[in-house]
Amino acid sequence: MADNHSLDQLVQALRCLPGVGVKSAQRMAFHLLQHDHEGAQRLARALQHATEQVRHCALCHTFTEGEICATCQDPRRDASLLCVVETPADQAAMERTGAYKGLYFVLMGKLSPLDGVGPREIGLQKLFDRIDAPDAVIREVILATNFTAEGETTAHVIAQGLKTRGVQVTRLARGVPVGSELEYVDLGTIAHALVDRR
Amino acid sequence: MADNHSLDQLVQALRCLPGVGVKSAQRMAFHLLQHDHEGAQRLARALQHATEQVRHCALCHTFTEGEICATCQDPRRDASLLCVVETPADQAAMERTGAYKGLYFVLMGKLSPLDGVGPREIGLQKLFDRIDAPDAVIREVILATNFTAEGETTAHVIAQGLKTRGVQVTRLARGVPVGSELEYVDLGTIAHALVDRR
Repeated sequence: MADNHSLDQLVQALRCLPGVGVKSAQRMAFHLLQHDHEGAQRLARALQHATEQVRHCALCHTFTEGEICATCQDPRRDASLLCVVETPADQAAMERTGAYKGLYFVLMGKLSPLDGVGPREIGLQKLFDRIDAPDAVIREVILATNFTAEGETTAHVIAQGLKTRGVQVTRLARGVPVGSELEYVDLGTIAHALVDRR
Repeated sequence: MADNHSLDQLVQALRCLPGVGVKSAQRMAFHLLQHDHEGAQRLARALQHATEQVRHCALCHTFTEGEICATCQDPRRDASLLCVVETPADQAAMERTGAYKGLYFVLMGKLSPLDGVGPREIGLQKLFDRIDAPDAVIREVILATNFTAEGETTAHVIAQGLKTRGVQVTRLARGVPVGSELEYVDLGTIAHALVDRR
């Protein structure tokens, strides 16, 4: 395929997608060129458009096309509650529950010193500034980072930073997932559920 | 994310890639927007460019940017040998062996009636026309479709069609893979290797 510069470039370019290696990239390129020209062009336009339009909300850091995202602008949301999540996907999961009516702060990552992600990269100062702001009415910060080692570390560091700021800091409850049988739940989870029993 | 039309559209558009569902598409979109704007724009350009430039070689049906692909134009290749493969990836695998110096015909698929892929979709008539052409010097057609049910069917149908055309028809040898231990090779392969022993 020596004369196939465009195809090679497409295969190379597809490898910027997470989890896509040479073989997958080739399969994707062949599929698009053979069966889905329209999809490829739609994808090209969507990529171009999104990279130009999407930026971070000035308040909560999530992806948005405006200056402030719709959630932060919504007057019906409870401004005294602030939920800290790692990614917009986590935020979307919280929203889908319908159980939360407060605001969000999206870290867009998690502390991971080995990968060079420190407090600055996840915008911790921005979070603290938001809580310290003179017009802030935040009463409670709910730490909803993931229950992984890095998520727990991130929650811990944020909790430390909030200690002196006079807001209540809570963490999502750990426990047995709904619909699961004890026999098949891992021991750490059962131990936590036991400690946090109510 | 109600105000995030561009992001939603990007997630939707990414789903045209084979093997990419909602979750992966979301992960890809977040990754590109958060960490790799440049990669996203390079991908957009590559998609646009490839869909405009890449077409099928008039002779062998593979992807090319010209009228005739480089392999078909190469005067050093043995025009009396024609190797039939399913995809450009299979062709590339054959080329990497360095053991084949003839020409190719790339089906760009395989017979799969249930998916609506018949002889017309894989260009069988074009293959036959090429062999029947007055200036054709093809002596042997090597069937190198995959050794799957559909690949075997495709090979069988092509072999039937070539019966009356006075060319020798061969199939890649089935047998024990190089470097493998008999104990771990499946029975069908060993049986074939036994029948085709030499």
